[in-house]
Amino acid sequence: MDHKHYKRKIYLEDKPRMEAKREILEAFGLPLEKEVIPTSDALGRVTAEPIFAQNSTPHYHASAMDGVAVIAERTYSAHEQNPLRLKFGEQFCHVDTGNAIPAPFDAVIMIENVDFIDEDTIEIIEPATPWQHIRPIGEDIVQEEMMFPQGHILRPADLGVLLATQLTHISVAKKPVVTIIPTGNELVEVNSTLSAGKIIEFNGTVFANFVKEWGGEPKLHKIVKDEPEKIKAVLLEAAEISDIIVINAGSSAGRKDFTVHIIGEIGEVFTHGVAARPGKPVILGKIKGKIVVGVPGYPVSAYLALEWFLRPLICKYLQIPEPRRQTITVKLGRRIVSGMGAEDFVRMNIGYVNGQFVANPLTRNAGVTMSYVRADGLLIVPTNVIGYEQGDFAEVELLRPLEEIKQAIVFCGSHDLTIDLLSSQLKDKRTEMKIVSSHVGSMAGIMAIRKGEAHVAGIHLLDPSTKQYNIAYVNKLLASQDVVLYPFLKRKQGWLLPKGNPLAIESVVDVVEKQANFVNRQKGAGTRILFDMLLEDANLSPEDITGYEREMFTHLAVAAEVNGDKNGVGLGIYPAAKAMRLDFVPVADEEYDLLMTKGFYESESGRQLIEIIQSAEFKEQVEKIGGYVVVENAKPKCLA
Amino acid sequence: MDHKHYKRKIYLEDKPRMEAKREILEAFGLPLEKEVIPTSDALGRVTAEPIFAQNSTPHYHASAMDGVAVIAERTYSAHEQNPLRLKFGEQFCHVDTGNAIPAPFDAVIMIENVDFIDEDTIEIIEPATPWQHIRPIGEDIVQEEMMFPQGHILRPADLGVLLATQLTHISVAKKPVVTIIPTGNELVEVNSTLSAGKIIEFNGTVFANFVKEWGGEPKLHKIVKDEPEKIKAVLLEAAEISDIIVINAGSSAGRKDFTVHIIGEIGEVFTHGVAARPGKPVILGKIKGKIVVGVPGYPVSAYLALEWFLRPLICKYLQIPEPRRQTITVKLGRRIVSGMGAEDFVRMNIGYVNGQFVANPLTRNAGVTMSYVRADGLLIVPTNVIGYEQGDFAEVELLRPLEEIKQAIVFCGSHDLTIDLLSSQLKDKRTEMKIVSSHVGSMAGIMAIRKGEAHVAGIHLLDPSTKQYNIAYVNKLLASQDVVLYPFLKRKQGWLLPKGNPLAIESVVDVVEKQANFVNRQKGAGTRILFDMLLEDANLSPEDITGYEREMFTHLAVAAEVNGDKNGVGLGIYPAAKAMRLDFVPVADEEYDLLMTKGFYESESGRQLIEIIQSAEFKEQVEKIGGYVVVENAKPKCLA
Repeated sequence: MDHKHYKRKIYLEDKPRMEAKREILEAFGLPLEKEVIPTSDALGRVTAEPIFAQNSTPHYHASAMDGVAVIAERTYSAHEQNPLRLKFGEQFCHVDTGNAIPAPFDAVIMIENVDFIDEDTIEIIEPATPWQHIRPIGEDIVQEEMMFPQGHILRPADLGVLLATQLTHISVAKKPVVTIIPTGNELVEVNSTLSAGKIIEFNGTVFANFVKEWGGEPKLHKIVKDEPEKIKAVLLEAAEISDIIVINAGSSAGRKDFTVHIIGEIGEVFTHGVAARPGKPVILGKIKGKIVVGVPGYPVSAYLALEWFLRPLICKYLQIPEPRRQTITVKLGRRIVSGMGAEDFVRMNIGYVNGQFVANPLTRNAGVTMSYVRADGLLIVPTNVIGYEQGDFAEVELLRPLEEIKQAIVFCGSHDLTIDLLSSQLKDKRTEMKIVSSHVGSMAGIMAIRKGEAHVAGIHLLDPSTKQYNIAYVNKLLASQDVVLYPFLKRKQGWLLPKGNPLAIESVVDVVEKQANFVNRQKGAGTRILFDMLLEDANLSPEDITGYEREMFTHLAVAAEVNGDKNGVGLGIYPAAKAMRLDFVPVADEEYDLLMTKGFYESESGRQLIEIIQSAEFKEQVEKIGGYVVVENAKPKCLA
Repeated sequence: MDHKHYKRKIYLEDKPRMEAKREILEAFGLPLEKEVIPTSDALGRVTAEPIFAQNSTPHYHASAMDGVAVIAERTYSAHEQNPLRLKFGEQFCHVDTGNAIPAPFDAVIMIENVDFIDEDTIEIIEPATPWQHIRPIGEDIVQEEMMFPQGHILRPADLGVLLATQLTHISVAKKPVVTIIPTGNELVEVNSTLSAGKIIEFNGTVFANFVKEWGGEPKLHKIVKDEPEKIKAVLLEAAEISDIIVINAGSSAGRKDFTVHIIGEIGEVFTHGVAARPGKPVILGKIKGKIVVGVPGYPVSAYLALEWFLRPLICKYLQIPEPRRQTITVKLGRRIVSGMGAEDFVRMNIGYVNGQFVANPLTRNAGVTMSYVRADGLLIVPTNVIGYEQGDFAEVELLRPLEEIKQAIVFCGSHDLTIDLLSSQLKDKRTEMKIVSSHVGSMAGIMAIRKGEAHVAGIHLLDPSTKQYNIAYVNKLLASQDVVLYPFLKRKQGWLLPKGNPLAIESVVDVVEKQANFVNRQKGAGTRILFDMLLEDANLSPEDITGYEREMFTHLAVAAEVNGDKNGVGLGIYPAAKAMRLDFVPVADEEYDLLMTKGFYESESGRQLIEIIQSAEFKEQVEKIGGYVVVENAKPKCLA
């Protein structure tokens, strides 16, 4: 708490992102520096100047075929009715592909068109035309020809033509040295023992690998404590040895966010805050002639800020254009709200269903790194747009290859641990296919199928009147649609409880009476609907439950919460309890079915998915987890 | 000539490419081998098994904001009209983003919404809801969650989430070791002094870099002579230490092509020859359980054969899908003929002109490596298709990013050395733009503009009747089109002659009388038209000229030919003579103009191109070459 009274700078600027970028690129100047390296090591490097051929290839008249070299004008009489015989030495010689054509020969006849009479004599029945089957000097590359302009990124075949003209060394753009400085008292090295409030320093490794991918040379500094004098010293030292400096965290406006003050003190600050989310609290400045980029601690904010500013700096250093991501137009499966006055970068899942790309936003929480890892694309909502309605079309930048997105089976609905297993088995058997799943709950799963946004939805919805699972909901909500309800699993739902069940909870009445801290699931989740039924059956209401409003999106997330609280309780499936070593009190045996569009069910992908589900190997793996029974010889359930 | 009588195997198989691939992949088995490596080194590596989170992140309830932690239910009375004061310690504590929330606090209020009354007292005017601004345990990653399936290629951000859950090491697919064996008596190391018949060994380096890019580990063997016993020994040794062996050349059916016999002797041959061009003479086999791929010596054939067979083998080893190239539909600018019975892989230039992708084939000569380097895409003509007509639409696989193709200025027509300079200057000033040029001659350039296949064509066509350059041709051939004829250069055409002009050539009459070996340009080239006019003016005919039928596509290629022949002569521009240190006897001062579509001329790209042409810097560079005058303050020529 030693910095409690350090002057806060609460308000950040709202500078347009492109303006901030223009300024920083200008301040960076035109820094192209060259180095000469062996051509054989130059894959992915950038030519620093136009490259001219040093020699021609071929550098002599070369035979283009295996055959014999002849003097063309001496063959003009050859004819099927009048074969011509030639003697070795003066009249012909043997040549293989690539051999030099010795004077005075000026044409090559392919071996297939030559009759060998004896060691020294051949017969031909067709004349040769001058220079036939001869590769002239420079056919491939002519000396002095420009092979590559400056700014060309070298590919494998490019190295070949360079070497072919004996360019053993070439001049390439030096890689800019980017020093990465992680700061923060809360950070610990990856091998440390974790305690509350401590965070593994992993951003540095991610940044270093971005720098590598973008063509720079990263230098990852060790963690620096939140001490202004230390940070100052490290920054000054980095300015000596780097082309660009990245400092992580301390860029916002909190008690310990003094990075901006330090940069201002020992250098110059151009920007503190841009009108773009997440990634807004970025610092752009200069220390001793070197550009400094200060990025926020939240991983997703940091990655975006680096893409906005660091990547263009590296490209400028190498003098190559900034690569643009492929974009496609998608239909939005959900409404997307965006504040005015700032761009929003929204991570999106994209599915290809019924010949259409449908995209749904992932969490916009900048701390959820997995949402960036799982994203298929980025939707950039411009500053002056307040969002999009469900069903609108919008352009997204792709984070994965289009073909991969097209091949994916889009899975949504309720979360079950076996979906991961299924995904892994599928990838094992059919490397080009994969399952992309989002855990939105059973009801949202049904709606996604209805809107044509998913191929498959996992659902487990108990109908209070019939006490049957799923059928009533599908009949009601998908009345006129061609869908298949495929029985997948029976699984145990029950109370997830801290080891030893300290509050001795056996029923929903116990949850209320013992004032346990309940961890709920989100609206529309099958488990939530089950819990609400239990409340109703016991004549209780949500107000009686402590924690009813705390919503988690997966069974594991509920289990993790219960794990940390000796008064906790949740409702969930047995495998979640097992994974977290919790106690489990069974409540219901439920039917977890797969709802599919008929088109998908009947497709090749659908067939393969069912084949894996029904395989002995998959069943064995699932039942080994415990709490599951895979439905044997399943047939689609009858729908109205 | 020691292998002259080695048994030839002239005929290759015509096995369908996909069948050969299926067989070889089957023979390769299921070789996934794993290794455990540090996560921080795992960029681009492939997960060998599903990866489950080892810990949750956050692993404690963490503040999501800078602010104060409070007990939510004690804040319910706070209101604008009824501010609530809280005391440090029991009622609130300071928290920064990422800090653990100490018991009994259960909500965070953002710093912006807190009034600091004194050191120990705050005031709030709005109640907190339980768990607000708190990141629950596992918000990002829940312990036991599957983060990645098997077969995932790790990206920078992926390393972050692995490290975040303290996975410091992970299990990845081992890289397959691919030994590359270059063979051939004609091959020499890149540093050697070249003599006729000797070729630089550069394929090995290209192959090694393909292997690297595709995820394997290359081992490049030194050059092996064409001696069966030596090759046998090297193959057997490679089989011990490699997962896959690539042997270069000797795969065809020439005198020294005994590779297939050797593999048959010490192993098994599955395929010798596939029905696909170029790349047909490929060998697929197995030696001591290791797959051998024998590829032809012509670079382009070899690169394609590796892509067809080696890449799938590497992907199978890593258990990842074979990446597919993006494809686009293009309009064909020229007719493409393909033989039945084999696929044809045609290298294509692609331009984006008037909102349409237009593609033209590059040479199909497998020895012209530059055509692969310069290609924008590959057109694959299926086995049963005999080709396409000009104007047909066809699908091509892209070898460059689509955006790069879209940004390119398509330049065609006559070749001039200054176009390379212009290209380089443009790349220097506007990194995202580039010139793609093909040297087709002035007439073909005019036709390309007419068909909407190019933005700019360089032309120099002397009209015999008016003795004016270009205008008459444009008026005749582009009568109804909106084009601009922009005066670019005046340049000197003349005789290109060996140093010292041994035949003392001063005129076209000398060329005939002294029986010089003439090197001609292709039909439609301005220089060829000039030569034909010289012939006509002297009452001579093509038959009088030795070498009239030898056509080169560039000035430099003509100069290179003349350079190698003391009886040689060509017609070309001064800079070509200068580059090759030839003698030069001037014949004409010609006007080399730029013909542009009006749309391009008026576009931003057009404007920038003209700006560079008119810059002092460009003029200086051009005139330094010699033989050129850049037209000052040029204005478009008047057209009818």
